[in-house]
Amino acid sequence: MNLIPSSVERLIEELERLPGVGPRTAERLAIHLLKGDQTRAEALGRAIIDLHEGVRSCKLCHTFSEDELCAICSAEDRTTNTIAVVEEPFDIVALEKTGRYHGLYHVLGGVMSPLDGVGADKLQINSLLERLRGGGIDELILATNPTVEGESTGLYIRQELGNSPIKITRLARGLPVGGDLEYADHITLGRALDGRESL
Amino acid sequence: MNLIPSSVERLIEELERLPGVGPRTAERLAIHLLKGDQTRAEALGRAIIDLHEGVRSCKLCHTFSEDELCAICSAEDRTTNTIAVVEEPFDIVALEKTGRYHGLYHVLGGVMSPLDGVGADKLQINSLLERLRGGGIDELILATNPTVEGESTGLYIRQELGNSPIKITRLARGLPVGGDLEYADHITLGRALDGRESL
Repeated sequence: MNLIPSSVERLIEELERLPGVGPRTAERLAIHLLKGDQTRAEALGRAIIDLHEGVRSCKLCHTFSEDELCAICSAEDRTTNTIAVVEEPFDIVALEKTGRYHGLYHVLGGVMSPLDGVGADKLQINSLLERLRGGGIDELILATNPTVEGESTGLYIRQELGNSPIKITRLARGLPVGGDLEYADHITLGRALDGRESL
Repeated sequence: MNLIPSSVERLIEELERLPGVGPRTAERLAIHLLKGDQTRAEALGRAIIDLHEGVRSCKLCHTFSEDELCAICSAEDRTTNTIAVVEEPFDIVALEKTGRYHGLYHVLGGVMSPLDGVGADKLQINSLLERLRGGGIDELILATNPTVEGESTGLYIRQELGNSPIKITRLARGLPVGGDLEYADHITLGRALDGRESL
């Protein structure tokens, strides 16, 4: 017996392909879209179809961009001797929000993850090394996520650079501001101890 | 500085309207769709746009259907003197999977929730009462979710029926099969005690 209309079944199948969306969530989203305003659903569908339109990869830092060079790479007022290496374009947005960084970026497009078949060749690591060989860079900030994959990708990049004169740093590990020492996990707390700052 | 292409920004805005999708999830989904195969994204967008196509509400039980009457309401082999009242169409799928129920259904389209402005008039309660007044129904199973809203919606329906001769039941509350008594919440365990079955 066909209890679910075919258009609903097809949407659920497509939604289940999204990361973090299981069968229940897919059903819930489909019901929401079905019960809601049809023009709202159409706007979402249209936004997904048009997503790739006019979006390309900045040829220097590989973040997404509407032009050949992104807004930061083409800006006149950035500190051009520093590159922060991040995993994804939205990490740039987060760093820009701090207002503390004025250098350039390089987007890897993910992290090395052998279990998922993601090696260095699938990331923008070669293009980073090439950029560094081009000269003019004094500091490379490894701003990958503080996860096992993020840290090992950072270590891999450091190894690839060998004994280059470029200063290599990474973001400080420690207690998140506004956090509670009692509830900090022991690894973070250990890192905060190791990296204690003199007052 | 425009760090995010407008098509990506627009998709994130649309995704954030979905239930359970916050800014971070919306960003993650947008990145996934952007990095992935463009034809995959188009298939999803198309499925959302086509969702409402050919889908209507069964004029008797109000589940979604491709015809005027749904597959169950138009079936010849159902027990027509019993109606199970459910919240959403997928609850029918769940009950059908048990293989234990052969009656008809009635989909409320949600539950009463005064805080969200959902009163009885926004649900298919009047159409249920009308269906019952039509006669031929001996048992009404209140199969709303075992939540505060689900239970109070059930109670409301029972009140509306007044001293009708129709037998009104609800699904048993108790320990979920395969569960662990030690980890059952105290309300469920209390209900399991109250409703203990003789062996």
